[in-house]
Amino acid sequence: MTTPSRRDLANAIRFLAIDAVQAANSGHPGMPMGMADIAEVLWNDYYSHNPNNPKWFNRDRFVLSNGHGSMLQYALLHLSGYDLPIDELKNFRQLGSRTAGHPENTHTPGVETTTGPLGQGFANAVGMALAEKLLAQRFNRPELDIVDHRTWVFMGDGCLMEGISHEAASLAGTWGLHKLVAFWDDNKISIDGNTDGWFTDNTPARFEAYGWNVVRGVNGHDAQEIKTAIETALKSTDKPTLICCRTMIGFGSPGKAGKESSHGAPLGKDEVAATREALAWPHAPFEIPQAVYDGWRAGNAGTVREHQWNTLFDNYARQYPELAAELVRRNRNELPEGFIEAADAYIAKLQLEGPVVASRKASQMAIEAYAPLLPELVGGSADLAHSNLTLWKGSKSVASDDPDANYIYYGVREFAMTAISNGLGLHECFIPYDATFLMFSDYARNAVRMSALMGAQAIHVYTHDSIGLGEDGPTHQPVEHLASLRYIPHNDVWRPCDAVESAVSWKAAIVRHDGPSCLVFSRQNLAHQPRSAQQVADIARGGYVLKDSVGAPEIILIATGSEVGLATQAAAQLGDKVRVVSMPSTDVFDRQDAAYREAVLPKACRKRVAIEAGVSDFWRKYVGLDGAVIGIDTFGASAPAERLFEKYGFTVEKVVEAARAL
Amino acid sequence: MTTPSRRDLANAIRFLAIDAVQAANSGHPGMPMGMADIAEVLWNDYYSHNPNNPKWFNRDRFVLSNGHGSMLQYALLHLSGYDLPIDELKNFRQLGSRTAGHPENTHTPGVETTTGPLGQGFANAVGMALAEKLLAQRFNRPELDIVDHRTWVFMGDGCLMEGISHEAASLAGTWGLHKLVAFWDDNKISIDGNTDGWFTDNTPARFEAYGWNVVRGVNGHDAQEIKTAIETALKSTDKPTLICCRTMIGFGSPGKAGKESSHGAPLGKDEVAATREALAWPHAPFEIPQAVYDGWRAGNAGTVREHQWNTLFDNYARQYPELAAELVRRNRNELPEGFIEAADAYIAKLQLEGPVVASRKASQMAIEAYAPLLPELVGGSADLAHSNLTLWKGSKSVASDDPDANYIYYGVREFAMTAISNGLGLHECFIPYDATFLMFSDYARNAVRMSALMGAQAIHVYTHDSIGLGEDGPTHQPVEHLASLRYIPHNDVWRPCDAVESAVSWKAAIVRHDGPSCLVFSRQNLAHQPRSAQQVADIARGGYVLKDSVGAPEIILIATGSEVGLATQAAAQLGDKVRVVSMPSTDVFDRQDAAYREAVLPKACRKRVAIEAGVSDFWRKYVGLDGAVIGIDTFGASAPAERLFEKYGFTVEKVVEAARAL
Repeated sequence: MTTPSRRDLANAIRFLAIDAVQAANSGHPGMPMGMADIAEVLWNDYYSHNPNNPKWFNRDRFVLSNGHGSMLQYALLHLSGYDLPIDELKNFRQLGSRTAGHPENTHTPGVETTTGPLGQGFANAVGMALAEKLLAQRFNRPELDIVDHRTWVFMGDGCLMEGISHEAASLAGTWGLHKLVAFWDDNKISIDGNTDGWFTDNTPARFEAYGWNVVRGVNGHDAQEIKTAIETALKSTDKPTLICCRTMIGFGSPGKAGKESSHGAPLGKDEVAATREALAWPHAPFEIPQAVYDGWRAGNAGTVREHQWNTLFDNYARQYPELAAELVRRNRNELPEGFIEAADAYIAKLQLEGPVVASRKASQMAIEAYAPLLPELVGGSADLAHSNLTLWKGSKSVASDDPDANYIYYGVREFAMTAISNGLGLHECFIPYDATFLMFSDYARNAVRMSALMGAQAIHVYTHDSIGLGEDGPTHQPVEHLASLRYIPHNDVWRPCDAVESAVSWKAAIVRHDGPSCLVFSRQNLAHQPRSAQQVADIARGGYVLKDSVGAPEIILIATGSEVGLATQAAAQLGDKVRVVSMPSTDVFDRQDAAYREAVLPKACRKRVAIEAGVSDFWRKYVGLDGAVIGIDTFGASAPAERLFEKYGFTVEKVVEAARAL
Repeated sequence: MTTPSRRDLANAIRFLAIDAVQAANSGHPGMPMGMADIAEVLWNDYYSHNPNNPKWFNRDRFVLSNGHGSMLQYALLHLSGYDLPIDELKNFRQLGSRTAGHPENTHTPGVETTTGPLGQGFANAVGMALAEKLLAQRFNRPELDIVDHRTWVFMGDGCLMEGISHEAASLAGTWGLHKLVAFWDDNKISIDGNTDGWFTDNTPARFEAYGWNVVRGVNGHDAQEIKTAIETALKSTDKPTLICCRTMIGFGSPGKAGKESSHGAPLGKDEVAATREALAWPHAPFEIPQAVYDGWRAGNAGTVREHQWNTLFDNYARQYPELAAELVRRNRNELPEGFIEAADAYIAKLQLEGPVVASRKASQMAIEAYAPLLPELVGGSADLAHSNLTLWKGSKSVASDDPDANYIYYGVREFAMTAISNGLGLHECFIPYDATFLMFSDYARNAVRMSALMGAQAIHVYTHDSIGLGEDGPTHQPVEHLASLRYIPHNDVWRPCDAVESAVSWKAAIVRHDGPSCLVFSRQNLAHQPRSAQQVADIARGGYVLKDSVGAPEIILIATGSEVGLATQAAAQLGDKVRVVSMPSTDVFDRQDAAYREAVLPKACRKRVAIEAGVSDFWRKYVGLDGAVIGIDTFGASAPAERLFEKYGFTVEKVVEAARAL
């Protein structure tokens, strides 16, 4: 092989995928084989990145929304010179390798987001493209486009069938994200076979209906056609682009090309051999000729690219030192100087003033207090701004070109909203928040999980947290949601009991750069709780003694949110041997050291009552078999909130009764 | 008022809504005011129902997908003569009334499905229209169209922004559900204000891309235009129809029409008075002139309609007595004679034969055993038929006209799939099942909750239930899902440990007509467990002693699914004072009487170890603070399953160690 053809370069992807899946005896060869030619053109001719520095600030973003084709991405990373040696590819899908079954951003350099759950990668990409737009309009100056990169997405039929593709595409169209380019792998095959029976959408017409620029009928195995399509996309100045690529799944396999059998299983020894022959690829598994590597290696170009950008940025920094410093700070995930002190001062002031407000209102007050200090805070609500109380004085719609644009009108699109948050958080330079009723966290649930799995900072604001929502009834009254969100690993759930805890929860969520926080707020007013300075400080530990017993406690009442007030009132009736523990975040409390936990919940005291307007069984982890729980294990009902709390047993009398019965 | 005009009839809806919301000081007047004219034309001129018998077999179905406009539906039901007296409307949103904040199928005669969570009503309607199509092609005979009714849906901008609208519309188009007619309330207002900033889709073009018949530009306040549009819809023989109605939210309110302020709050006393004046409606709140009632009352027409149908059906029953009997049986939710005996015989045979298979395979075997007896069983998978193992020998695609059509290729659309199941179940005559990986129950979560809230029979099959899924990695490995599904009230979750328990779980789900069941199955093979006949019978109680101690137990091991084998092996090492409890359904076990539960888990024995490859805290309800749990509280990893079980501590040694440490 002297100078490899484009097809040879693409075949390197194909055989790395074929051979890695064969070695693992597990995986998805069909998609990498089908999209290899597209990927080759994109990465070799257009993708602006630096394999020597996967975190280079102004890099393009590449998202593999059809993440089961992970070997495509690993092959691309390996061939273009990222720190992903061939041994990692040989270890595809093995314990401890950097080549997991689906691409994971925390495992593999160059992987921008974790994909696999279909459609979400596409929505993450919309978030990343929005991030680029917002950074550009805030930081760029004439002749100094220091923020100037694109977001490229690969997506399959599965992504396009998922509802989230509708939500995300609609927003991308509305926002005119012209630097977003999506490639549709139109291969007419999904796992169940030919898609004629279940996917008959006119997808190009659908995307035009969202205001996209659509390039139809591209032969996904013809480099020149692909190039022409990308050139068309680059010319778009006001619309995102969908490039519709007609491809053959399992391209090159004589027996399995065009068939679902190539999708999710190794080709098999004989078929691998036949494919080698058909594509004239005589090399042994995992052997890539040097000439092919030479055709791929983008490392030098990447270093040059970053160097040129550095020169531009130096120039920028000389002319706009404050803006440059702000961008560097944001890119480093550092909070502004003085933020912590300001937040603590605000919290202390609240404790002193003791406002009696709904915690959703307290949330808005916290945003109002913190957001002016945090230009990186960007977010909004799924069409519930005036219920979630997410707007603040400085809110400016991201649909505008305003340099301070920071507020997102998401419309009624909870799932895309949350996945877009994830994209914003992963892009760097942003702390995203989103909001809906706690009930509709259900619609977004897997994206919340993905925030946690990816260690992406995202603040999910959920208001109307219980039957306290009242008249809207059981379709809108969360019961199992608190417990279910807490059970997502690495997800911090907060349910504050008053304005002070609300402000602390917001601070905790802002400080937590490596994962999501769900902040859960009430619709109705909540009493203010008295606290010492130490108690105020202990809120951040997730659970603390709010009102102590005289001497060792004989009874401990544990409560969260709107039920803390109930607990303190019950304690007053139960006498001075009763301790009240406020537990705004069980996740955070459980991470405290054993001594602290023992100090709050001493093992010796087994007379414990937990009170929360949510499923009761969750609380057995703190009250055991001997304690009592006042919770709700059925659906709610439509009625004024006070009537419901009474009906479902959330009264001082019931708490007192339960404690006395122990 | 002598003969009321159409507008007068519509205004009756408007003022019932206005006055009920005002009385409740809570609710959504804007939508009923906006859609009143459309509703009036539809219900008075086209809607085929019988208010005297809301369950008349061949009735049309009406679904209010924008369920916050519930007063529209209550007004329609009241005015047309359903058993919903004016006092119920006066009690809108009060405890115990039949007029909940959002329409609830279990509360109010004539409400076909519970709506409010946006977009789901539309998907339910797609399920209902599919039900009609399937019944028609199975039961109708020449000149004897005993199944012949339509499904009508009202939907707002919110429903159309939700991703589920994409999934459901796409399937309805593919299936050509021409008896489905959706009215889009195109009022350009959502809660956050004018939708220009967040909803710029070309919705008519989008629905044409799904293969729908679209009627554009209808003035939703002009009865004649509405009639013409409906006539166009009635002519469609192969496509569902979307009627795009331009409306004014809060129509008639001088100060709030066309504004979001009319959406979700009472108009206020003064504005109510002004609206009375503007619409020339002098009547006191809740006073409807008799002439208006006379213009509305559909009771007699409904009785005549049902009578005519009865005549047709009698004729049919004479010619096709077996088919008629089958339809009657299915409509009564009765299982075929002999089904229970056949199922029990199958279960007993399995116990005897003891196949060692993956429980997903056992699930398919159960379908294969039961489905030939159950023509009402209809379902499919979200593009994972060969992984979920949902196909059986008798499967025939519902996209065909085959009278036995029973299999649904859902494509990758978990949320719509589940909501369509709900629609099929609510329509009567079907036992629907759907399937995906347990992970992607997340995508469908709120529809699972709605199955439970509505008491709709639906069987949700979830395979690949844990890290046992292996190489696909943490994006596909459920951790918190079992516990989270169990916490949904009224939802029965089953995680069987072998083929026998799998067959029992399927039987339980088929027998359970008043709620959903989630059947959770393994990817990997599971050992067969020996049992006595009594033990086989006790599986249906959710939890039972699988292997007992000699004398009272000193240690109890509790396990589910793939971990039951681990428990029995550990018990063998721990000696004869150890009891093993298999707990395939905690939901069902918790409903057993106290004596049975005590017999299985005697209070005296506190040395308890629970073992499940899911979040550990869930099990504290059975093991308390003194017991131990072997669970998984972090995300999984990509590797072969055996390596993962070892890595995460699911080994006989760890179980033995945990038990000995108590």
